[in-house]
This record gives sequence, C-alpha cells and structure tokens, in this order.
Amino acid sequence: MREFFYPSSVAVIGVSSLPTNLGRNIVANLVEYGFNGIVYAVGPRGGMIETRRIYRTVGDIPDNVDLAVILTPAHTVPGILEECGQKGIRWVIIETAGFSEYANEALQIEEEMIRVADEYGIRFVGPNCIGAINMENGLCVPFPRLRKFVKPGDVSIITQSGGVGMSALNLMANDGLGLNKFVSVGNMLDIEAEDMLEYLITDEGTSLIFLYLESIRDGRRLMEIARRSKKPILAFKSNIGKLGQNIALSHTVSLTSDDKVVDAAFHQAGIIRIHDATSFGNNLKILELPPMKGDNLAIISRSGGHAVIAADACELSGFDLAHFPDSYLRRIEKHFRASVIRLTNPLDLGDLFDLDVYAEIVEQTLQLDDVDGVVFLHTSLSEAENQTSRLLLERLIELVDKYHKPVAYYVSAAAQEVSYLKQNYNFPIFTLVVETIRALEISHRYYVQSQKVHTRQDIPTFEVDKAEVRSLIERAKAESRDLLLSEALAILESYSIPTVRGIVALTVAEARTAAEEIGYPVAIKIIAEQISHKSDVGGVQLNLRNSPAVAAAFEDMMTRIQVAYPEAGVDGILVQPMVTGGRELILGGRQDPQFGPVVMVGLGGIFVEIFEESVVRVAPISRHEAVEMIESLRGAQILQGARGHKRSDIEALVEALLRLSQLLVDFPEIKELDINPLRLFHARGGCRALDARMILG
Amino acid sequence: MREFFYPSSVAVIGVSSLPTNLGRNIVANLVEYGFNGIVYAVGPRGGMIETRRIYRTVGDIPDNVDLAVILTPAHTVPGILEECGQKGIRWVIIETAGFSEYANEALQIEEEMIRVADEYGIRFVGPNCIGAINMENGLCVPFPRLRKFVKPGDVSIITQSGGVGMSALNLMANDGLGLNKFVSVGNMLDIEAEDMLEYLITDEGTSLIFLYLESIRDGRRLMEIARRSKKPILAFKSNIGKLGQNIALSHTVSLTSDDKVVDAAFHQAGIIRIHDATSFGNNLKILELPPMKGDNLAIISRSGGHAVIAADACELSGFDLAHFPDSYLRRIEKHFRASVIRLTNPLDLGDLFDLDVYAEIVEQTLQLDDVDGVVFLHTSLSEAENQTSRLLLERLIELVDKYHKPVAYYVSAAAQEVSYLKQNYNFPIFTLVVETIRALEISHRYYVQSQKVHTRQDIPTFEVDKAEVRSLIERAKAESRDLLLSEALAILESYSIPTVRGIVALTVAEARTAAEEIGYPVAIKIIAEQISHKSDVGGVQLNLRNSPAVAAAFEDMMTRIQVAYPEAGVDGILVQPMVTGGRELILGGRQDPQFGPVVMVGLGGIFVEIFEESVVRVAPISRHEAVEMIESLRGAQILQGARGHKRSDIEALVEALLRLSQLLVDFPEIKELDINPLRLFHARGGCRALDARMILG
Repeated sequence: MREFFYPSSVAVIGVSSLPTNLGRNIVANLVEYGFNGIVYAVGPRGGMIETRRIYRTVGDIPDNVDLAVILTPAHTVPGILEECGQKGIRWVIIETAGFSEYANEALQIEEEMIRVADEYGIRFVGPNCIGAINMENGLCVPFPRLRKFVKPGDVSIITQSGGVGMSALNLMANDGLGLNKFVSVGNMLDIEAEDMLEYLITDEGTSLIFLYLESIRDGRRLMEIARRSKKPILAFKSNIGKLGQNIALSHTVSLTSDDKVVDAAFHQAGIIRIHDATSFGNNLKILELPPMKGDNLAIISRSGGHAVIAADACELSGFDLAHFPDSYLRRIEKHFRASVIRLTNPLDLGDLFDLDVYAEIVEQTLQLDDVDGVVFLHTSLSEAENQTSRLLLERLIELVDKYHKPVAYYVSAAAQEVSYLKQNYNFPIFTLVVETIRALEISHRYYVQSQKVHTRQDIPTFEVDKAEVRSLIERAKAESRDLLLSEALAILESYSIPTVRGIVALTVAEARTAAEEIGYPVAIKIIAEQISHKSDVGGVQLNLRNSPAVAAAFEDMMTRIQVAYPEAGVDGILVQPMVTGGRELILGGRQDPQFGPVVMVGLGGIFVEIFEESVVRVAPISRHEAVEMIESLRGAQILQGARGHKRSDIEALVEALLRLSQLLVDFPEIKELDINPLRLFHARGGCRALDARMILG
Repeated sequence: MREFFYPSSVAVIGVSSLPTNLGRNIVANLVEYGFNGIVYAVGPRGGMIETRRIYRTVGDIPDNVDLAVILTPAHTVPGILEECGQKGIRWVIIETAGFSEYANEALQIEEEMIRVADEYGIRFVGPNCIGAINMENGLCVPFPRLRKFVKPGDVSIITQSGGVGMSALNLMANDGLGLNKFVSVGNMLDIEAEDMLEYLITDEGTSLIFLYLESIRDGRRLMEIARRSKKPILAFKSNIGKLGQNIALSHTVSLTSDDKVVDAAFHQAGIIRIHDATSFGNNLKILELPPMKGDNLAIISRSGGHAVIAADACELSGFDLAHFPDSYLRRIEKHFRASVIRLTNPLDLGDLFDLDVYAEIVEQTLQLDDVDGVVFLHTSLSEAENQTSRLLLERLIELVDKYHKPVAYYVSAAAQEVSYLKQNYNFPIFTLVVETIRALEISHRYYVQSQKVHTRQDIPTFEVDKAEVRSLIERAKAESRDLLLSEALAILESYSIPTVRGIVALTVAEARTAAEEIGYPVAIKIIAEQISHKSDVGGVQLNLRNSPAVAAAFEDMMTRIQVAYPEAGVDGILVQPMVTGGRELILGGRQDPQFGPVVMVGLGGIFVEIFEESVVRVAPISRHEAVEMIESLRGAQILQGARGHKRSDIEALVEALLRLSQLLVDFPEIKELDINPLRLFHARGGCRALDARMILG
C-alpha cells in the first residue's frame, strides 16, 4: 500500500480547462501542498491548464507514472484503467462515483474494472472516494479544492465516506491536531479498509489511526490486524440501526452488522470505539500523551469551581485522587500565602500566578509514585497572562517528556489565545473540564486493554469427541433438518458440557417407564425438528411428580402440538429428571456474517427477557475473556455471592463457555445454538444444560 | 434584584493607582463595556486613575450612588458596608474573598456584615464572587480585566463559581452565543442563586437561563421558581461525589446533596440538567430555536456519510424519520439528475449545490405536517462555496421564523468560516453531527416536560385519619423512640395503604394462639425499638405451617436477638398471615435536607439489592408523576405484563405512592420510612405492606 502514498509521479486523469472541472482541483491541490514528485494532467480534450500541458491519454506521457488518479464518467473507467495497465501503472485511485451505490447496470462496469485490474496486476482504491493525502510529501489528490488547513502530524485516517473524512480533518484542524496520511476508500471494490490499516500499523509517520466505517467486510481480519498494532486505533462504526440502513446502502453499498458483535470484537482487539465527534477529538488529543497507567490522578486548578467539577468527573471515571504526602505538601505550602488555600488534592492554586511555582508544583507532583497522571486546569483571566501561560505550556511539555506521565492541560481563555496555542504547539489543548477527565479515562482504559490484547495466550484447546459430533451433524444434514433436542444434548456432552440426559419415549407407556426409571419428579420435552421454540406451544412440562401426571402431561402436550403445528412430525419426547437449585443462565452462540463464530452468556429468566442482559464475544475466547464476559454481566454480583446470595460455581461456567466457544469454531455448520437454561449450581456444584437448540440453517 | 443590573451610578470601592490594583480593572471594564451611567472610584488613599478622581470614602461622593462594588480586604468590609448604608446605597456587590471558605474567625466578620445590611436595608451579592455583567447597559464589574469577547444576546448566567462562570462565557463566545446578564453569587451570604433566578425568569432581556451551582440552599423554592418559568433553565450542579466535597467546602462553603434527589427535583421542575460543557453548548444552541414538538425528523445532507451517522443518532435519540409523501418527492425529484440520488429520508443531496433548490427543499420539508424538525447537514467543500453558504444560512433563518419549527444547521467547513458564521449570525451553528441530533432530542424532551410542568394540577388530597397518626407519633416522641412495627403498620392503615395486620404476642403461648386464630401458614416478626434491620439478626421467620413450628421459631428468634442485641428490650412479636403471590416492591421516603419530603419506589429483592433499581421524586407527587416513577423503573415491563408475566395492579401501586407522598408531607417528623416488602398483586388484587419501618430521628 505504501505506493499509494509515496509515488514519484502522479497522473491526474479527467482534467480539462473548463472552470467547473474537478480534475483541475486535484492538480491545484498537488501544487498547493508542494508535492515532491512530478504531476501529469490527462484529459481527452487535451489543452492546457495554467502552464501545464493536458495529455490526451496516459499513453502520451513521456515518462513512467507511479500513481494514476481517475475522475472521469463511470462508463469510461474500465477503458482508462486498461490504458493505465498498458502504461505500466500499478497503483490507481478511482474517485468517480455513480457505481453500484446507485444503479444495477453499473455492476457490469465494476466487473470489467476488476477484470482489467487482475489482468495488469493493478491495485486500486475506490471507486466513489475522494482520494488520499500524505502530509509528508505533499501528495494531495482529493477533488475538492483544499487549502493547507490542517497541520502535519502523526494521525492517519482511513474513511469509507469522503464527507465524514473531510469533517474529521476540519475537526482536527480546529483542535490543532496534526495529520500524517488520509485515505478515502469509498466502495472498496479492490483495496479494503483492512488493507490500508495493515499498512498504516507499520507506517513510520503514523502513530495513531482513525477509521470511519459504514460496514465491516472481514471482521476477523480487522481484529487480527488490530491485535498486532502497537498504535492506538480509533474507530467510528456507523450504520448501526434500521434508520440508517437505506442511506448507507445507497451511499457506500454498506450492509449493517450486529452492533453488539462489533462492540465485542473492537473490545477484544483493543480498538477504541467512538460514537461522536466529541470523543473523536478527546481521544486523538489524549492518545498523543503518554498513557495513564494507573488510576491515581492529581488535579491542580486555578479555579475552585473547576476543581470541584474535575473531582466529580474523576469519581465518575473511576479514578482516585492521589494522596499527597506531608513532605510534598510542606514543599508546596511555602509558595502559598498562609491560610488562604487548603492544601489537598484537588489543589486549588487560587489567585497565585507564578510560572516557576506552577512548574515546580507540577514537577513535584509528577515525581510522586502515587500519581499516574495530572490534570492542570488553567483559567487565564486576562490577556496580560497570555505570554506567561504560553511559557507554562512549554514547561508542561518538557515535564511530560521527562516523566512519561500524562499532563492533561485544560485552558479557559479567549478564543484567539486558545487557537494560538492549538496551532503553535504540538501538545493537546483541552477546553472542556469534564471531557478532559473522560479523556484520561480513555487513556487508562486503552492502556489496560492493550496490555491484555498483547498478552493474549490463554485460549485453551480441549480434547473432545469431534467424530461423534461430525456424525450427528452429517446425519441431520443428510435429512435436511436441524438437530433434535436429544442430538443437541449429545453434542454438548461430546464437548464435556454437562447436560441432563434423559430417555426418549415415543408413547405414553414408554414415557411412564422412563419416568419410573429416572425417578420423580421429571420433566418432559417435545422432540420435533419443526418446533424450535418448544415452550411457546406447550412443548415443555416440568415437575411431574408421579406416573399419572406424566401420562396427563404427555397427552396434553400432544394435543397442543397438534393444534399449534398440525403438520409437525413428532420425533418423541425426552423424559428428564427435574433439576433444581442454583441459578438459570442462557448460553448461546452463532455464526456472524462478518465476524464468524460468536458466543453469548446471560442470566436467565426475566434478566434476559426483560433486561436483555447478555454479553457477546467473538470466538475463540481466551480464559480471561470468558471470565470478563461473566464479570461484565449486570448481576454478576449475584453469581459472586454478594449480599447473602450463595456463590455460584463460576469456574464451571467459564469452562462451559470455553468449550462452547471451541464447538462453534470447530463446527461452523452450527449456525445458531442456545442452551436455555443452563443450570449453574452453587459452590463447586458444576453446571448442567437442561435444554438445547442447534440450527444448521 | 433588577437594581443590581440597572444602576444609574456605580461606586467601585477598593481602587488605587497601584498597577496591581484589581479595583482599577473594574473601572476599566465599565469604560470598555460603555456603561451608560456614572462611575465613581473609591479608595482610602485617594489620588487619580487615568483622568478619574479616587474618592477616599463613598461619603465623599457628591451625588447619589445606586450600586456599590466592594473589593477591599475582608476585615474592612463591615465598616465600608456601614459607610454605604449611611450614604443611602441599598445594593452592593462584595467581591472580596477570604471569608468563611477559609477561616473560622471570618465568621464574625460575616455576622457583622449581615447585621449592618439588616440595619440599613442593604441587599448584597457575595462575598467571594467576581461580580455582574449586563450587556444591555454596559455594566461590567468583574475584577479580571475583560475585553468585549462575548456578543450581546439573550442568555443569562447565575454562577456560584466565578471561574466556571468565566469559562462558560468563553465557551459562549467561542460558539457565537450571546449574553444578556451574568452574575457570580459566590458565598450567597445574603442574595442567593434562587433570588437571582426569580428575577431572571421575568427579566425582559433574558430568554434562557444557565445556573452553575455547587450547593442548593432551598430546593423547594428553586423548584417552585423553575415551575413558574416560561424560559428554559439549564443547570450544572456539581459537587456530587465524595472526591469533590472537600474542595467545594473550602471553595464556596457548599455541602453535598443527594444527587438522585437533585435529578428528580430538576426533572419535576422542568430544569434541564447538564453534566459537561459539550451539553452546555448544545443546549444553549438548540434552545435558541423553536421547540421540536413531535418526534419526526427530516434529515437533509450533502454527505451520505453524515446522513448515515445522523440516521443512527436519530434512532438512538428515539426519533423517527418522517415519511416523505410521493407528492413531495416528485417536487424534489425534478431538482436532481436522474438516478444519481435515492429519494428518501435522509435525503442525500449529493454534489448538487444550488442555493434556491436547497432553500426550496427545506421549505417544502418544513411544510410537511409529518415533519417536526429538520437537520440540515452542510459540508462546504471549498472556500468558493462560502458566500453561497452564508446566503443559505440566511434563508434557513427566515424559514425557521416562518414555520416555527427547528432547523438544526450543521456545517463542516474551514475553522475561519465557521467562526465567521458564529460571530455574524444570531443562529446556532452546529459542528458535530451526532451532537446536533442529541440537541434536538433535548429540545423535544424539554418541550414535553415543560408542557407537563405547566399543567401540573393532579396532586390528590386524600381523607385520612391524621389524629390517629399524630397520637402514635406523639407517644413515640414522648418515649424518645422510633415507631414500632405495629405502629408503623397502623399509620399506613390510617392513610389507607393496605397492610397485613397481625396480632402482637408477648409469649410463646400467645404466639401459638394468635397463629391458630389467623390460620397457617404464618410469619412472625420481632417488635423492638432498637432493632431496625430485623432480617439481618433473624428477626423475621416466614412460612410457619403449624403450632410447633411457631413455637420453635419464637424461641429461636429470642435466642438470636439475645446474642445480637443483648441490651435490646423486646416489645413482643407480630404474628401475621403469610401472604404470597404477586411481586415484591419497596416503597419508601425520607426528609431531604434541601428538598424536604421525597418518596421512593423500587422492585424488591435482588433488583434493589444488586441492581439498585429505584426511582425517587420530591413529594408531594402528582398522579402523573407517580405513574411516571413506576414506568421509569427498569423492570416496569414485568409489572405491565410483558412476555407472559401477569399484569400487576399498577393502579393500586400508584394509589399507595400518592398516599405515602401525602403522609411524608403531612408528617415531616417521619424522617425515614420503608415499606419492605410491599406485595403487589396481579390484576386488580391491590397491594399490601408486609413490613414497615419508620424513623423519627
């Protein structure tokens, strides 16, 4: 991918001398950004723009061309691509819109483009994109006419929408954040966002990556690349609901994903997900600083009010205020007029403004082992302080460099001065108090999460009876049906997920005999391939305490099923011992179109029904991830034995989750799987799957 | 309060010719802001600043003075106040700090100030504040030297912290939002935030009020004033946690409130609560527009990506995308090149940019009955579009005026242009997409809530037996004890909150007889004034099915109580019939120091234990508020009969809440009250309090 960003020569194809021509803008942008290579303009009518000749075809260009940028009507693109191939150009950016996002006939043009690219070994970005920028060499090929509005820096952007990408650049410019590379990937017909990401994680000039996505093509590859990245990756994934679907489809041909899975995948891969522009700016700023490694913060403020607000935010972000030792306070105290200020954390500086004293206080604070980060809340009350405030900022920059701890610098000052600071210092300037603390929270979370992502080695592999599972699945497939209840339980047993096995009965008499053999009370459940939600149609009867009860329940069940599913063939009923005690959970999994196998756990009953409390992860999961899934359930405390509840056998649940994860990875044929309920017993009682449903789809 | 903002003459006391003197800044600010009255400088050393004479005392001023601003050392303030009184000045702003927020000896000075103010009928703002601004007449008396950085407008600010107030002004300036009045109330020794609020809700120049508070003195008065306000009131209440307490106390002598009660009170009074500066700006901007009365939004965007993001946000904000009728689409269609754009909501304008077409589309959209508000997402791709974009903004302003529906205008453009728009148009400019939709959500919520607040008439008054309750409380008070279980249940019965009455037994024999009389199964509960959490010490035994079980439970209970509370006198045990079925809830209430009586409801058991699910409101509550409390419980769906659960008798619960609310208002002696559990039956089965605890404190 490097070639897209570092060409020695660029041909802009689609240039004319008409004033409305957009190709001209691209040439002008390359000039304005000072591109350090050769620029050729190409357009069928020829002519001149400024002092530059317009070649009629790329073939006319006398020298080699590394990169072509195409902005011509859709139907001309395959032909032009062919000309590029003949010219030996291997890297192309196609900005032309009007392809599959609008009309079906364009599909043919797309296929032709792919064919030509294959033939010549061309890789291309787009179509339907606004191109790329590299601030290092002045490559700037978007078709809107751009001034140099954003400063050079180390943030790189991959965006599926040109408009959103441009807005991100405007926001960065406004916050004084510097850009390294920008690429709009559009319809991703050849080069995908993941390809660009893979390049940028090793790109020298990039130290922070922002991704805007409306769809995810290959979720597992995205996760794999992100896990390898030592650089923070920030992602805004839109198109999460029903209302946006239509427009996303017509805009960049993007399909919706299951947003809960996206959340889980990003978390597992250490990608920081953002949902609005406020957190975009906040993240970019804080990630430019050293990470907040622990959760002890020091707040130093010139305004008591800001200190109060910051302390509140600190609490909400899960931080503690670092304890200031006496020796430190005594050193600080000498700078203050006696009795005016209470020495504590937050430290209220009051009306004192002495540059050296401020710098010394910050330095001594950073030296404290107990301090993982500092928030400096600076309220500049008048223009007279501007010069000193700038010097203070320079001192803070030095201190961050010296102590490798973050100092989040908030400033309240006139807009002009704030803007000066943002433009002239390569250091994040925060202008909102609560948001500053939240930014540090992001820094801390990212640090913790990335440590986990990079030390992820504990995915166990269990010895299981794959052959048995394979044969059950093959049989069902051969009969074009899903797995029966009894088979599903057998599969779980093959993976050593404990179940309550039972006896299959075909008649009342068999059911009675089975119940006697098992011992009362028993439960009976319908086995029928067409009926997947048994409970809804009376296909589950619990707590049968004697033989007549079993008989009555059997008859009743058959009658009800007959009414609800007159066409359904019944394969029998399963007689199981009643299992009581412990807590009910739901375990499940399915094959996600973008991310492959995912596993799910939730508390059973009304928790999952009403509160929709469940946690999802992309499989295979590590032992750590399984534990984290359970801990992140609202209600985990109940399992952990809070407030007089008995502690559940969480280890058994972890084990079941890990084995389920392996099953879904081993057998992608299982499209959907539910264990509902899984009964989890107290203490070391283990767990048992009481019912299971597996869909081959 | 008007006199603080519209004086004909101002004496600034504490001015000297020293360059570091802060009083000089005040005089300079008055000049810079063009104060339309007379300014007198006063300082003990006399002399001149610029061409202005410094009077040695206010007594030396030859003419009447309406307002004095004092910024002199704390110990001199009472004397100066006295001089002001003698001079006939009745309105004073005391900016001096160093009072009770720092040292205890200052308490005497404060008392002296109050005495002098009383004697002369002086009302004063402060101390420990930075003064006031009125953009209408150029009154500007803060001690930091201020340029005219914020433009005139209709937003007024009351702030307890000067620093936070100044930051709010900086944020407003940065967003092009206009100020009307500003007042920093500091320690609120005389004039309180509520006094200023009461004035501003009728102040002609103010149409939107922002309050920054670290403490609430008189919560009920605040609610009463807010309920009367026809203007939106925005409040940032900080000092909500443990970490901020210390600094808040030393900063503005502010005590923490129960934040859940603050939330409830603000909601009930229609005050919009914000928690960060992002929502501060967002709220101020959106509330300048007509309200979003319904929940149907139209999104018009120049960028497909922005449209997708906006549609997602729309869904998360609970809005619907308005349906565009065919007739409308046909009118719009003629403006677009065929087949390039899909006509739908969101409407993607693509690369079309025709001012008249844009304006016509927005107008036709506003004309649709089904559209309650419009989001216009404008991405200006180059400077060449700036002029047309400005004209577009002017057209949008006219359309908002014509149709009284909000058009939230988002623009992505170079910083300079955005800044130009903000400074030169009195119209909110949004620069973050998701935040724009969230702003409309605020507008809609505020509209709905303020309709409710202004039509609040359904607080019922029930006929109850107050005399009985009074006598039970008096007896307990006379014996310096809290209410016994049996008394607490009797009080509930007096308010027609159904209980399970029982029989008090003092011996095993009495308990057995009582159980026989009541019929099995029974529950027995300890009655003992020193034991308030009975269950924790085995003071509750349920489901006793026969006489020996009752006897055994009685003995066991006595033994356990003896161990846990060797000193406790036992007043007997209460034998109650076992009540089963329905759902367990918790009802409660207490006297809040700032807001008086509050009521609480929550689902019982693990819901309140583990999930801490409960809802609080300030009493008395209206019938509507009682219903809303129940509906806002997570888990309300269970009561409403979702997913096969039986519907609970919600009307009975509403009735119980309303009666409880009245009880807490009628008898503020009851400091704390719990009904745990209240058993709520299905269908029209009513409810019953099974256990109750009332603390007189």
